[in-house]
Amino acid sequence: MSLLVVGTVAFDSIETPFGKTDKIIGGAATYISLAASYFTKKINLVSVVGDDFPVGAIEMMHLHHVDTEGLQIKRGEKSFFWSGKYHIDMNSRDTLATELNVLAAFDPIVPESYKDCDFLMLGNLTPSVQMQVIAQLPKRPKLVVLDTMNFWMDTAWNGLMEVLKKVDVLAVNDEEARQLSKEYSLVKAAQKILKMGPKYLIIKKGEHGALLFNSEQVFFAPALPLEDVFDPTGAGDSFAGGFTGYLASTKDISFENMKRAIIFGSAMASFCVEKFGTERLTGLKKQEVEERVQEFIDLVQFEIDLG
Amino acid sequence: MSLLVVGTVAFDSIETPFGKTDKIIGGAATYISLAASYFTKKINLVSVVGDDFPVGAIEMMHLHHVDTEGLQIKRGEKSFFWSGKYHIDMNSRDTLATELNVLAAFDPIVPESYKDCDFLMLGNLTPSVQMQVIAQLPKRPKLVVLDTMNFWMDTAWNGLMEVLKKVDVLAVNDEEARQLSKEYSLVKAAQKILKMGPKYLIIKKGEHGALLFNSEQVFFAPALPLEDVFDPTGAGDSFAGGFTGYLASTKDISFENMKRAIIFGSAMASFCVEKFGTERLTGLKKQEVEERVQEFIDLVQFEIDLG
Repeated sequence: MSLLVVGTVAFDSIETPFGKTDKIIGGAATYISLAASYFTKKINLVSVVGDDFPVGAIEMMHLHHVDTEGLQIKRGEKSFFWSGKYHIDMNSRDTLATELNVLAAFDPIVPESYKDCDFLMLGNLTPSVQMQVIAQLPKRPKLVVLDTMNFWMDTAWNGLMEVLKKVDVLAVNDEEARQLSKEYSLVKAAQKILKMGPKYLIIKKGEHGALLFNSEQVFFAPALPLEDVFDPTGAGDSFAGGFTGYLASTKDISFENMKRAIIFGSAMASFCVEKFGTERLTGLKKQEVEERVQEFIDLVQFEIDLG
Repeated sequence: MSLLVVGTVAFDSIETPFGKTDKIIGGAATYISLAASYFTKKINLVSVVGDDFPVGAIEMMHLHHVDTEGLQIKRGEKSFFWSGKYHIDMNSRDTLATELNVLAAFDPIVPESYKDCDFLMLGNLTPSVQMQVIAQLPKRPKLVVLDTMNFWMDTAWNGLMEVLKKVDVLAVNDEEARQLSKEYSLVKAAQKILKMGPKYLIIKKGEHGALLFNSEQVFFAPALPLEDVFDPTGAGDSFAGGFTGYLASTKDISFENMKRAIIFGSAMASFCVEKFGTERLTGLKKQEVEERVQEFIDLVQFEIDLG
């Protein structure tokens, strides 16, 4: 089952209490693809970069079974650049610079060979760009997962409402869920958001884990308590990548299997934050992923016999 | 197995976004005892009130199998009074009034008939008062659980360090764990705190659940996602009461059983916040408690076969 990933491929410059980086490889689609690559080998990427983007990073993606036919390379233009600084609690950050560059006029083109995709992961982008991708697919994928952010709620509300009608799973963080629903209680927020289109809602709470809702059920997955969160950049995208990659590999979109997918997604996010940027997501071994998932099992497993 | 509960019995006046109360019955030992009463019927209370305390509240405790021989009633004095106002997020609150009254000179006296206690739950109080209780017990209880707060870290550090050496389980919230350890990471905080005396550490994270640490293991229990948190007052104490009550009823202080105890404690906390004060903790049915625990099981249960 092929997974189509759409989102940014970019340069990031990150400062955390543990240090700072020069320009490193980032972008939602990069994290999503790398995380998904530990589960499925048919990953197709639609994104855009400038000709300043290093060919080594593209080769790294190929090593992770990511097809880059859909990665547009714009001559004479610069890649999207984001720079941010995290505070000590790692939950808040200041954006120091956002240079859209090639992203400003991004016209996503889905190559013919990608069009029969079974799973579609739309990373955080302008809702109208996300919609353009859906519109290019001749048959509806088995599952469409969408990430978005508060910025689009502020600036592209109508477009966001349109694309939400087309997706199966929405993944947002707790603040975004509150803004989208205008409800403080996440349970009430979920009920409202599930009426906007998505059949499933994932609320990411960072170090506090993640919730999965459908109209009748709720599942909670913890984040792994870590000694240090070194760099949270890309954690949410790594989560989404692990989630969709696992679903694509198992071809099972039941609620029970989504629970497992959330655990695998959480495992990938827990790796992501251990080093700067994508460093920890490259070259993981299967055994490391399994051991990490076992840690999640051990963390929450208990037995109560209610008789 | 008898459970000795030491802590405040008090009047509270509470304002939340959902409404406000007149003076209602509160206090750590009240919540602890009520929550524990759903698991064990041998609860002995050491506390102090003034003669303004309503006899009906004492009768309510008797109905919950709470022995009040150790509840001192000070003639001509007033009960401890706390008043607070919660903000919309329910995680932060302003204290509007704290009138120590009888608590100012509280000299805890453990009645003879309480002295062979197997389980001791020391609710949040001056560390020296907590120490006085321990000193009165001729044999060490099977398990000593202690709650404290940042105020004692600021004002009674040495006393707190002394009493921590005497306890098995420390229960604090995440901010308190950070202040006590001077570590931001809760994993590092736990490592440091476990060197101060306690063999087990519970870090309560409110709506984000609770962590249980010993030197080698960690367990995480979620909070139940609720439509509304009506009044968080007493949630931490209800948690502690459910936790110690369950342990006392099962006589098993293994890590595996503590996991179960944490789930039962979390269930009691989830009831507590549904109404003002102790209202929801009085008159619960066994079946309601079991159904609530089943909700916790359903919330986190998943099956992954790593082969």
